[in-house]
Amino acid sequence: MSLTDAQKEEIAQLRGIETPTRRATVPALEEILYEPLPLLDHGFVRVVDYMGDDSAVVQAARVSYGKGTKKVSEDRGLIRYLMRHRHTTPFEMCEIKYHVKMPIFVARQWIRHRTANVNEYSARYSILDKEFYIPGPDALAPQSKQNHQGRAEGEPLTGEEAHKVLTLLREDAERCYANYEWMLNEEQDPSRRGLARELARMNLTMNCYTQWYWKIDLHNLLHFLSLRADGHAQYEIRVYAEAMLETVKRWVPLTHEAFSDYRMGGVHLSRGGLDIVRRLLAGEAVTQENSALSPREWRELMASLGREG
Amino acid sequence: MSLTDAQKEEIAQLRGIETPTRRATVPALEEILYEPLPLLDHGFVRVVDYMGDDSAVVQAARVSYGKGTKKVSEDRGLIRYLMRHRHTTPFEMCEIKYHVKMPIFVARQWIRHRTANVNEYSARYSILDKEFYIPGPDALAPQSKQNHQGRAEGEPLTGEEAHKVLTLLREDAERCYANYEWMLNEEQDPSRRGLARELARMNLTMNCYTQWYWKIDLHNLLHFLSLRADGHAQYEIRVYAEAMLETVKRWVPLTHEAFSDYRMGGVHLSRGGLDIVRRLLAGEAVTQENSALSPREWRELMASLGREG
Amino acid sequence: MSLTDAQKEEIAQLRGIETPTRRATVPALEEILYEPLPLLDHGFVRVVDYMGDDSAVVQAARVSYGKGTKKVSEDRGLIRYLMRHRHTTPFEMCEIKYHVKMPIFVARQWIRHRTANVNEYSARYSILDKEFYIPGPDALAPQSKQNHQGRAEGEPLTGEEAHKVLTLLREDAERCYANYEWMLNEEQDPSRRGLARELARMNLTMNCYTQWYWKIDLHNLLHFLSLRADGHAQYEIRVYAEAMLETVKRWVPLTHEAFSDYRMGGVHLSRGGLDIVRRLLAGEAVTQENSALSPREWRELMASLGREG
Amino acid sequence: MSLTDAQKEEIAQLRGIETPTRRATVPALEEILYEPLPLLDHGFVRVVDYMGDDSAVVQAARVSYGKGTKKVSEDRGLIRYLMRHRHTTPFEMCEIKYHVKMPIFVARQWIRHRTANVNEYSARYSILDKEFYIPGPDALAPQSKQNHQGRAEGEPLTGEEAHKVLTLLREDAERCYANYEWMLNEEQDPSRRGLARELARMNLTMNCYTQWYWKIDLHNLLHFLSLRADGHAQYEIRVYAEAMLETVKRWVPLTHEAFSDYRMGGVHLSRGGLDIVRRLLAGEAVTQENSALSPREWRELMASLGREG
Repeated sequence: MSLTDAQKEEIAQLRGIETPTRRATVPALEEILYEPLPLLDHGFVRVVDYMGDDSAVVQAARVSYGKGTKKVSEDRGLIRYLMRHRHTTPFEMCEIKYHVKMPIFVARQWIRHRTANVNEYSARYSILDKEFYIPGPDALAPQSKQNHQGRAEGEPLTGEEAHKVLTLLREDAERCYANYEWMLNEEQDPSRRGLARELARMNLTMNCYTQWYWKIDLHNLLHFLSLRADGHAQYEIRVYAEAMLETVKRWVPLTHEAFSDYRMGGVHLSRGGLDIVRRLLAGEAVTQENSALSPREWRELMASLGREG
Repeated sequence: MSLTDAQKEEIAQLRGIETPTRRATVPALEEILYEPLPLLDHGFVRVVDYMGDDSAVVQAARVSYGKGTKKVSEDRGLIRYLMRHRHTTPFEMCEIKYHVKMPIFVARQWIRHRTANVNEYSARYSILDKEFYIPGPDALAPQSKQNHQGRAEGEPLTGEEAHKVLTLLREDAERCYANYEWMLNEEQDPSRRGLARELARMNLTMNCYTQWYWKIDLHNLLHFLSLRADGHAQYEIRVYAEAMLETVKRWVPLTHEAFSDYRMGGVHLSRGGLDIVRRLLAGEAVTQENSALSPREWRELMASLGREG
Repeated sequence: MSLTDAQKEEIAQLRGIETPTRRATVPALEEILYEPLPLLDHGFVRVVDYMGDDSAVVQAARVSYGKGTKKVSEDRGLIRYLMRHRHTTPFEMCEIKYHVKMPIFVARQWIRHRTANVNEYSARYSILDKEFYIPGPDALAPQSKQNHQGRAEGEPLTGEEAHKVLTLLREDAERCYANYEWMLNEEQDPSRRGLARELARMNLTMNCYTQWYWKIDLHNLLHFLSLRADGHAQYEIRVYAEAMLETVKRWVPLTHEAFSDYRMGGVHLSRGGLDIVRRLLAGEAVTQENSALSPREWRELMASLGREG
Repeated sequence: MSLTDAQKEEIAQLRGIETPTRRATVPALEEILYEPLPLLDHGFVRVVDYMGDDSAVVQAARVSYGKGTKKVSEDRGLIRYLMRHRHTTPFEMCEIKYHVKMPIFVARQWIRHRTANVNEYSARYSILDKEFYIPGPDALAPQSKQNHQGRAEGEPLTGEEAHKVLTLLREDAERCYANYEWMLNEEQDPSRRGLARELARMNLTMNCYTQWYWKIDLHNLLHFLSLRADGHAQYEIRVYAEAMLETVKRWVPLTHEAFSDYRMGGVHLSRGGLDIVRRLLAGEAVTQENSALSPREWRELMASLGREG
């Protein structure tokens, strides 16, 4: 993680100031407010603002669904009910803002989620830092043979090939950056005029780091996390999602628990899958052949039920 | 305004609790936090949460547009620059949540703004309060003759007609509500079963009050206010927009000032309108006939320039 | 259903014109294009435009996920794969536009779906038709005792109570409408000026009909339909959703089939629910007491598995 | 522009098929349907589907704002009225879908517009083409001295510096691509396993081309074009916006004309700017000093009025 001294000082200063507020506050989240959580080799995510807590979800649900008592045990039950039945609007009543630093190829995946507010560091105005993501040895994965979209986890490249890949990634990023700097001519060689920033940036590789402020409501954040903290997500974005899940746990613990139980840990059964579960429970010997499922669906179903196909 | 004693007590209690926070706080907005601002005969709007301040706009702009010093005078200039040039994303970094009570026909206009989060009191679950909007004598306007969409401001109905209109509005609302109550059979007359709430509600008139939590970012709020605090908006929603503008002034005074100067007080000149202004400034005698504008556009332009057509 | 003769003529005229296009066309949907499908007592839904077909989904998926052959059997498999794994963006590539006439209390539920484009008939400009929804005898349901939000299906009110409810609904709607007309003074009684339309409309009851054009992409339409064609949706909006599902079947039959199998007919198992299914399949005797589920969740799970609790 | 023979054949085939439809068709747009319009050195934009026409805007406005006659002259007036008064929802009733190929740094600007549907070519699944944007000699601009965000138009780099910049851009892109290919090991050198695609892509430079399907409604398209066809937009995205404006002209000529007159060719006067125009028109000698405007705002205003400051 690469914060300048000025940034570190600003963070320390912000963390040192406390003012009284009538708004709901969440001490467990205040504890880490502004603190960067380091990720990958130069990245981080940090919570820089938030609004609302578990009670804001309950309050919004109660205006919609009528009154009730206000014990914490009932709040938990109501939040679990909302999560289970996908009553999503009460979760939109909480908002959080992150400051994130990540490689550009990660930012390109991330930005596809359209329901957030974003202000990104602009390479039209400013000069990008000289920082590139170089995977650690465990992350240097080959293409998966089963999954067209992913890598083979747990079997990283090794030896000569790993060494050469890392060398190429580093050398290409550094050479491109050096040439980017030369084109910009920020050091004002008077014999030339320098290329516009908005053009020179095209010479950078996609493991360069960028950063942005990213603000989103809790419902849409959970949707983002359900996709990006999932095992199918690319490792380099998943580490961000996992760190953010921990901030959600501090912020809205009841919502986090319900989300873990009903969304992250669950499985969706199709009409056909449900039919097979019922037949199995009735003692019938169901096989792929008599299941009406395709071989692929059958395999997926058996895997989720913890059975051999 | 009709708050129950329980609601008043809850507000007093919330206002009595202050907790320390590391987040940005805005004392002028904290002053009125949770307090209902009364509107129309039974409505209100109140700020129940917020996130960010003018500095959050500046901070987001600086991550996009590069660094600078941090004097307040420069913050003001930057915010004005952003507003003037419609760089809207930094204003999305602030968020506010309102609790609003308003007549259903007002809610129907309001909900057309899709970029907010909403939780409305549900008449499928709960029973609507016995409260109807009856216009005050000044609001009892006839149809405008010029404007197909609006009322004639400043010339309310009077005398016999006004009296009869008010009587009809009141009697119809009350009779419909009484029959709504009869259909619900909440008093449990054992000789009948009562109609479902989701059906009985259809008997209510559209001046019944409803309420919701409504959460929105500052950019989209300003867009909403530019339309609804405008002279063309219906009076009954405009009073809400005007009250909310005052809360914006407390919350983000620099943004409010820039918004007043560049958006609310300004005017858009078309290509043709700009051409005419240039010709007038050059001393040419321009008339509608030689202007290339339609009579209607000409009238609108002359009005905005403060000239007789 | 209440179409004027002018509207019927316009529909016949539009249906009579065919022009050649290079765009994808769907003959089964063209067959019913512009035709109103009658719903409730005066409502309808009709498809007035569309863009794309099942192949547009496939084409969008292939730009994202790489090339393949183009047999129809493979299109079906790809669409089912996308639906199963919630790869939603390819379904956003199709768009459809409906013209809908429905009671205002139905419109109020409908508009909560924010991802559509809407143009509604405006009662600020125009005068609403004299048409009210009066439920048929089978729809006159009492409040559900189990479900705070719904009605008891299948046990409508009868006899005296039903008769009185229908009479009240009809009389209140008619009286309010008559007074609305009186206030408007469209017949130009010269002794008075008439109330502005934007005000007079507040006297109408919520079973009045309104209408709008409603345009949405296929992904968001399916999300809407999964909520509103569901058994928990209010009957009066469900009939619209069911009619629209039939138009989806004509339009994109492969997508409709996948949607029916994986979304409408399926069930979501939580982490705890999945655990119980696994234990049951392993032959264990699981009861609510040893299940770690709340009684309510247990009941819901057993119901979805088709077992007695 | 780089279409494979297979793609060219597919386009020819699609263009050769015409089917009858009851939907509105636009012959001028059909003429260029599917045809790629070449942009930059390897990019293109092409219209691949559309829905609605100028009449759909009118129809939606009429459901909102009441009936009227249907002469074309009145359609034009209504569309101009809607555009002038920013009644935007009727323009949302038309939809268009483009297939675009552009450099990745252009795609990164483009994707910030969140109100569109997108399916992008995925470098997790597929291998990017070996194509890089290398600016033409006229586009090789230095940084602007006035404008922190832009380039100095009209004064491109020349001679030795231009030659070296072009050489660096080309060599760096080619070397990085060659190493990308080596890492992928698609030629199956059996002595090594190859790096996962999702990782290898990070070695590419941002002038590589990507492509996507991009679908948007007419209102949001015009907003995009007003920003990206503007003189402040980066040249490399502006050429796309300008080509798309031409497709809009074919598609909805009345809307295009109104957009040109009221949005592209117009100017927004602030409260202070309007005041100065009024004073000038009244014959007063206004200077920056007595204007209440900042020097910068004064300069901007005088420039838009065509006067020397």
